Amino acid sequence: MSPRHRNTQLGFGATAKQPGARPRREADARHTVDPAACELLEEAKARGIATAFDRFLAQQPQCTFGLDGLCCRVCIQGPCRINPKKAGMDRGICGARDYTIVARNLARAIAGGTACHSDHGRHIALTLLHVAQGEIGEENYRITDEDKLRRIAQRIGLETAGVPVAELARRVALAALADYGRYTDEPCTWLDTTITSGRQAKFRHCGINPSAIDRAVTEIMNQTAMGMDADPVNIIFGGLRTALADYTGMHISTDLSDVLFGTPTPIVSQANLGVIDPDYVNIATHGHNPTLSSLVVDAAAALAEEARQAGAKGVNVVGICCTGNELLMRDGVYLASNVSGQELAIMTGALDAMIVDVQCIMPSVRAVAECYHTCVIATNPLVKIPGTYHVDFREEKALETAKEMVRLAIQSYGRRDPDKIRTTDHRQDVVAGWSLEAFTDLLAGLDRDRPVKVLTDAILEGEIRGVALFAGCNNLKVAQDSSHLAILKGLLANDVFVVATGCSAGAAAKAGLMAPGSFEQFGGEGLKRFLGRLRDAAGTKYGLPAVFHFGSCVDNTRAADLWTAMARELGVDVPKVPFVASAPEAMHEKAVSIGSWVVAMGIPTHVGVMPHIEGSELVYGVGTQVAHDVYGGYFILDPNPESAVARLLDALEYRVWKLRVHRKAAERFGTTLSTVY
Amino acid sequence: MSPRHRNTQLGFGATAKQPGARPRREADARHTVDPAACELLEEAKARGIATAFDRFLAQQPQCTFGLDGLCCRVCIQGPCRINPKKAGMDRGICGARDYTIVARNLARAIAGGTACHSDHGRHIALTLLHVAQGEIGEENYRITDEDKLRRIAQRIGLETAGVPVAELARRVALAALADYGRYTDEPCTWLDTTITSGRQAKFRHCGINPSAIDRAVTEIMNQTAMGMDADPVNIIFGGLRTALADYTGMHISTDLSDVLFGTPTPIVSQANLGVIDPDYVNIATHGHNPTLSSLVVDAAAALAEEARQAGAKGVNVVGICCTGNELLMRDGVYLASNVSGQELAIMTGALDAMIVDVQCIMPSVRAVAECYHTCVIATNPLVKIPGTYHVDFREEKALETAKEMVRLAIQSYGRRDPDKIRTTDHRQDVVAGWSLEAFTDLLAGLDRDRPVKVLTDAILEGEIRGVALFAGCNNLKVAQDSSHLAILKGLLANDVFVVATGCSAGAAAKAGLMAPGSFEQFGGEGLKRFLGRLRDAAGTKYGLPAVFHFGSCVDNTRAADLWTAMARELGVDVPKVPFVASAPEAMHEKAVSIGSWVVAMGIPTHVGVMPHIEGSELVYGVGTQVAHDVYGGYFILDPNPESAVARLLDALEYRVWKLRVHRKAAERFGTTLSTVY
Repeated sequence: MSPRHRNTQLGFGATAKQPGARPRREADARHTVDPAACELLEEAKARGIATAFDRFLAQQPQCTFGLDGLCCRVCIQGPCRINPKKAGMDRGICGARDYTIVARNLARAIAGGTACHSDHGRHIALTLLHVAQGEIGEENYRITDEDKLRRIAQRIGLETAGVPVAELARRVALAALADYGRYTDEPCTWLDTTITSGRQAKFRHCGINPSAIDRAVTEIMNQTAMGMDADPVNIIFGGLRTALADYTGMHISTDLSDVLFGTPTPIVSQANLGVIDPDYVNIATHGHNPTLSSLVVDAAAALAEEARQAGAKGVNVVGICCTGNELLMRDGVYLASNVSGQELAIMTGALDAMIVDVQCIMPSVRAVAECYHTCVIATNPLVKIPGTYHVDFREEKALETAKEMVRLAIQSYGRRDPDKIRTTDHRQDVVAGWSLEAFTDLLAGLDRDRPVKVLTDAILEGEIRGVALFAGCNNLKVAQDSSHLAILKGLLANDVFVVATGCSAGAAAKAGLMAPGSFEQFGGEGLKRFLGRLRDAAGTKYGLPAVFHFGSCVDNTRAADLWTAMARELGVDVPKVPFVASAPEAMHEKAVSIGSWVVAMGIPTHVGVMPHIEGSELVYGVGTQVAHDVYGGYFILDPNPESAVARLLDALEYRVWKLRVHRKAAERFGTTLSTVY
Repeated sequence: MSPRHRNTQLGFGATAKQPGARPRREADARHTVDPAACELLEEAKARGIATAFDRFLAQQPQCTFGLDGLCCRVCIQGPCRINPKKAGMDRGICGARDYTIVARNLARAIAGGTACHSDHGRHIALTLLHVAQGEIGEENYRITDEDKLRRIAQRIGLETAGVPVAELARRVALAALADYGRYTDEPCTWLDTTITSGRQAKFRHCGINPSAIDRAVTEIMNQTAMGMDADPVNIIFGGLRTALADYTGMHISTDLSDVLFGTPTPIVSQANLGVIDPDYVNIATHGHNPTLSSLVVDAAAALAEEARQAGAKGVNVVGICCTGNELLMRDGVYLASNVSGQELAIMTGALDAMIVDVQCIMPSVRAVAECYHTCVIATNPLVKIPGTYHVDFREEKALETAKEMVRLAIQSYGRRDPDKIRTTDHRQDVVAGWSLEAFTDLLAGLDRDRPVKVLTDAILEGEIRGVALFAGCNNLKVAQDSSHLAILKGLLANDVFVVATGCSAGAAAKAGLMAPGSFEQFGGEGLKRFLGRLRDAAGTKYGLPAVFHFGSCVDNTRAADLWTAMARELGVDVPKVPFVASAPEAMHEKAVSIGSWVVAMGIPTHVGVMPHIEGSELVYGVGTQVAHDVYGGYFILDPNPESAVARLLDALEYRVWKLRVHRKAAERFGTTLSTVY
């Protein structure tokens, strides 16, 4: 009954090599392929400190009902577990079948992911509003990128001529907040104004346009409650509506973060745990929201002298997870680790404070910190960790509060135990800061008027094979970073142009795939030629990387903007653009919601860790096959990196082949691609 | 480690009789105490039709991790199961402990319940808005209770003098919709204007005022995601904020339903499956939202002649679950069953159509209907059931669509199989329709100026011992209705004035506890005297019931308005009012969210089926004990009906005793109760 061990793609993206059985669910002997993490896991072993890697083993074997999505807990008559082979147990008490339960669980995961991103976006929008209204002092936040503000305002249809910047910011912030709480049925502004007309029509036709982000979350929670929707396809469509709300909140977040903190431009930095330097007061900012961490950077600079008085060379702010990516992108702050390495940063013995904001913060950081001097500081009212400091972070006193935290770190520096210092030398150079604007500038070196044509032409001419977005987390079901790196390297060697976000970007950065000039090492001949041409034309001061860092996980809409730009350049809709996505080590509900809207946008999307849907052949089939017919995008669920590479390449090849065939036809009839395709 | 089998109340509500072990989780030998249900379960057995009662047995034993709330599925690195006795498995992979996971699961259940009620309320508010704007014809909906509209408008601070009714309705509807999507931090209007000043201060002080319903749902989904809040108390406070959003949506729903469909007044009808009369075309309306079903009643009346032409005596609309309660309260429509009997209605063989709207609709109705001629019609875009008719119900064509459905039922009547007709004679008379307004009118027979004083005086004088709200579902972990009836009868015999909503009201109605004059049979001497006085003074045309039907489950705010009125009459805050609540057979997430706000409002709240919180002593203790210190309300978790009665009586006695002591002090000092207490 169960489709486990099967993952066939019929007709599209099919490869000769079908993936075999999914990897054993018991632990991989290797925990990580990150050399710094390996060193620190040895340290953990020596000191008897339990980490997530150990707890993952302790949780084996994991419940198969949960893994298959067949456990239902939406009412307290349950829990019900579906066993198709046991009479009567093939349905829940209410009669819900496998497909209903699997679809409901999936949709609620999307709701969780959407809630995370959207609340993040709301926070940024409210901060912008308060800045615009003069309620927050300049020393805390200010409008950094007025040009971007004006571009956003124009895109969403606001009058900009002659409007003062503060007033314009207020109007943009209010328009963003309206996307959270509209009661009418118009689609969300940030969705509708950033996609192709083809996607607009598709979402309207399928009835999956969210009218408001928060309403979409409420509606899907209602739709998936006991005694509500039993139709898995309708539930999945509801889930996609929620996922598009996720897209909306993410796009708001990225846009308005750029306005407040600046649109990233290329910047050189370093990554991996080796950036924790024992000579400095080390502060890790961890989480996702730049509102807090960007002020910590300012406060650290302001208090360098205090650190020196305490005996350190200064204050060294490093980043973990996506707060790390936000700071790396804009300020060149060192990136210490992606999500699975967060405990290991403490075990260097030289991390004096870890300041956390929201999401992906393992509660265990507190338990590990107990064995060290590290001061863990929680800052968000929705994130409290028993036993840690909690500093209530308020925008109107941001710098003051950030300084308070930095001073805690300086105090903590004095409490270090020299016997426990175990820093590592592993660090890699990184060139990050690739906002879509920065990448477009790079392309413009070859064609100032139609920069995106440089990219699409290179694909159509066969110099490169397409574009891939790498995203998502670490998931200890595979050795940390191993799937990210295997698939990244596989695609690079096959001339795919790769952008990455979030912890996937972290994996690439730590492994040297974002080092200046690294494309020469990892790229195939075509990719090397393409990026070499870009480098030469732009005359960049830094070498180009193999993998382009597009930002934190909330910034995946930068990649969406790229495929939309490519679609417009080619004159086709997104499902015809040679663009694929991969989340090799997806873990968080946010990855589920992102993956869902990426598919709805029309992108073949690989996921390297099985989402909990194998309990229903129907739901599995909708995600991997029916989605293709309806939306043009579909899931490639494949834990095997080797076959994942093959299938992603096939998906690109299929799209390029179709584009070329139609372009030839267009040339024959003397017309454009959009007319014939 | 686990508090299972323990349920101690220290200091408050403690009784000599502590409950023993919680009942076996394996099935009770008896499935139901409803005689009609017993008959039809025999029929099911004879015909080999599986019902929820059978599937409940097939699911035994249920997963103890799920029952204890110790299963975490908020990321796809999981599922994790917490076993405090297994090293390493005492925490999730991320390090989340038992209390974090239990609290998160609880909070997400509250989110589910809040989403259900609130979406229902939104639907009513939008309907009112469209009526007010003239977008829906009079034949469909109209403003039925203008007085209530004006009272609501005044309460929420709108100018009413000289404002035409349509304009006023528009403003009220917009104010309600603003409670869903406000971006500022003011508390929701429908919450803030309906509670005591004491509760306003308490909610402000605890920081649990929701500013918008949908935002509260999004925020708690974010707060409970992977790597967010680890502090169980903070999570529970977030859950309470969401629960107060639930209250807000529910109050909007009840208020605006009364405006559109009329505020209920006492009405006599009948309940139980015997109301399905084989001589008629029988249509069951099932779900929760009166928007559809009230039009089905109109359509059925309009098409009686067509039914007669088809050979029936007419069209008989009956209700199931809370749609049934809505119609019973306002139109005196027969109530066929509460939630666990929904499949049995079909097995009478004489149910020609079941029209369902939202929530508590078992997907199994379709499977049972396959064995019969019954036509199951789903009507809501969020509720599709594979294999059933789906008629897209739109307000602007409501009557037309309702007629279409009634015609489907008439056609279906012609396809009946006479061999399968197995109706029952069990039906009980019912007097329902007790809106708070109707009940206040009854009290006014004894004191026109201060009607609520009649009730509070009767309590202070010891004639009755207090007020109890019965609410919630059926849950097959106990025999259907058995706990409802045992506790109801126990409290009635002990002179407690009882109001009931939802499926608890259904249980009372089916068992004759709402029959005219039934208080004479079930009430203790004091209650008989009290209700006898009310009857005599009011000169009612109908005998008074033992249990007062206060509406559907979304109408629990009618009871909240009663305790608020009592608090104001007594001059104290709600936690001092002799009022208790009980959900003896809670099942739905909605029951979890209702129970949570009832506790936050200050009411001792019994739940007869264990919520999934026993995995954490801390969370358990917060709900049953700490809540008392903070909010004045607390949970009494006790599956034993006998001890539940004792503990509810103790909770009332304690509050009455304290009131009397302070009243005496007030008299001594020649001042009021509010001054000394």
